[in-house]
Amino acid sequence: MRSLTFTAQTSADGVTERDFTVGDMPGVLWSPASGPDRAPLVFMGHGGGTHKRWPAMTGRARLLVARGFHVAVVDAPAHGERPRTAYDEQEVAALYAARAAGEPEGPIVVRYNADLARRAVPEWRATLDALQELPEIGAAGPVGFFGLNMATAIGVPFVAADDRITAAVFGLHWPDALAGTAKEITVPVQYVLQWDDEHIPREAGLALFDAFGSAEKTLHANAGRHKDLPRFESEDAVAFFARHLAAVEEVQHDRGEQR
Amino acid sequence: MRSLTFTAQTSADGVTERDFTVGDMPGVLWSPASGPDRAPLVFMGHGGGTHKRWPAMTGRARLLVARGFHVAVVDAPAHGERPRTAYDEQEVAALYAARAAGEPEGPIVVRYNADLARRAVPEWRATLDALQELPEIGAAGPVGFFGLNMATAIGVPFVAADDRITAAVFGLHWPDALAGTAKEITVPVQYVLQWDDEHIPREAGLALFDAFGSAEKTLHANAGRHKDLPRFESEDAVAFFARHLAAVEEVQHDRGEQR
Repeated sequence: MRSLTFTAQTSADGVTERDFTVGDMPGVLWSPASGPDRAPLVFMGHGGGTHKRWPAMTGRARLLVARGFHVAVVDAPAHGERPRTAYDEQEVAALYAARAAGEPEGPIVVRYNADLARRAVPEWRATLDALQELPEIGAAGPVGFFGLNMATAIGVPFVAADDRITAAVFGLHWPDALAGTAKEITVPVQYVLQWDDEHIPREAGLALFDAFGSAEKTLHANAGRHKDLPRFESEDAVAFFARHLAAVEEVQHDRGEQR
Repeated sequence: MRSLTFTAQTSADGVTERDFTVGDMPGVLWSPASGPDRAPLVFMGHGGGTHKRWPAMTGRARLLVARGFHVAVVDAPAHGERPRTAYDEQEVAALYAARAAGEPEGPIVVRYNADLARRAVPEWRATLDALQELPEIGAAGPVGFFGLNMATAIGVPFVAADDRITAAVFGLHWPDALAGTAKEITVPVQYVLQWDDEHIPREAGLALFDAFGSAEKTLHANAGRHKDLPRFESEDAVAFFARHLAAVEEVQHDRGEQR
C-alpha cells in the first residue's frame, strides 16, 4: 500500500488546505481548521481538461468543509500536473478537431473517458486507502463521491467497485459506456443534467439517471446549456451529503455515552 | 374587494397561526412570532381530497416560517369546510369508482381539477388581494406559490394570471390541461415528479416541466411511486423560495440606511 505524503499546508477562513502525493499522484485535501477529531470524507473528481484546483473544485470544497467534511481530489491521468501519453495527445487533438468542425463531441468523450476511467479507478481506490489511514478520516466512516462530466465517467465504475462509497453525486455524461455499470450502484445517488445540453441529448441524460440501481435516487435537471449548471446545485449536493454522511458523528456520540 | 377577517389565533414554537375568512372562504395564515415588520408571503395550495390543515400543509408552513416567510392556504372549492355541489359529488364518485376498478385516474383528475381551477383562481386572487392589505405582508413584496397535485392544476393558471407571483414550486400533474398555460409562465419554477409514478406516466410529467416558459426552471425527479415524494423536497422548496423571495428584506435594509 502506498501511503500519503503531505507536501504543503495553508490555512485560511477556517479551512486547512494540504497538498499531498500518493505515489506519483498529486492531490489536495481540504479540512475544517477545527472541529471533531474525526469527520466523513467526500472524494471529488474534476472535469475533463481541468485539474484538482479548478475553481469548481475549490468552491465545492469550501462549501463541504463549512458543513464539517474533509474533501479530497487528485489530478486525473493526463490532467493537471500529470503527463500525457501519445494516446492522450491523440484523443485531445481529436476532440479539438471535432469541436472546431462543429461535429459531435460525444463519441470521442465517451471513448476517451472510458480509457481514463480504466486508468484512474485503481488510483482513486489507492488514494482512498491512503486517506483512510489518516486519523482525522479513519476507515470506519461513510465516504461520499462528488464528480460531474469526466469525473462521472470515472466515478461510476469507481463507486460500483468500492463499497466504501455510501452516497454519490454524478452528472452531465452519456449512458453509452456507463449505464451497465450504473445498474450495479445501489447507494443513494443525486444526478444533475442540463435540460438544453447541446452535447448530451436529453434522452441520453435521462437514460443514465434511469440506469442507476439505487432505490433512493434524485434527478436535478436545470434549464440551460451544458456549461450553464447553476451554482446552487453545489449547495444542493452539500445538503445531499449532509443527509447521508452523518454516521461518523453518530458513532462518536454513541461512544461518548458509553463512557 | 372582500377584506380578510381573523377568526382565531394561537402561537407556539415561534409560529403564530391565524384562522381567517375572505368572504365565505376559510384559510390559515402562519407567520413568524417575531421578526421584521414585513416579510414575503408564500401562498400554498393543498392536494385533492385534503384541506388547508393537512399535515403536508402544516409541515411545509413550519419550515417556511422558520425561514421568515408568511404562509397562507385556503380550502379549495369542495374541500375542507366548503360545500360540494352535485357536480363535485359526481366527479368524486367517478374517481373512487375508477380507483376501485383499477382503471386510470388521470382522465378524471385532469377533467375535475380543470373545473376546480376555473372556480378557485378568482378566489385565490381575491385572497391574495386581502392578504396584501395586511401591513406585515404588504403589496410591494414578492410572493411565492407552492402547490403540488391538485394545487398545481389550480396553481398553473393562477400563477399565469397573476404577475404578483414571482417564483413557484409545482409538481405531480399531467400536461393535458396545463401545458398550454404553463408556456405563459416565465418566473422561476421548481417542478417535482416521481420517477415511478403509477398514475402519471414519466413522459407526461417531463412534458409538463418542459412546457414552462421560464428561463430558470429546475426539475426534481425522485425514484418512487406517486405518494413517495421524499420529505426533503419540502426543504428544497424552502431553499428555492429563500433564493427568490429576498427582495422585501433588501428593500427594508435600503430604507434603514437612508435614515
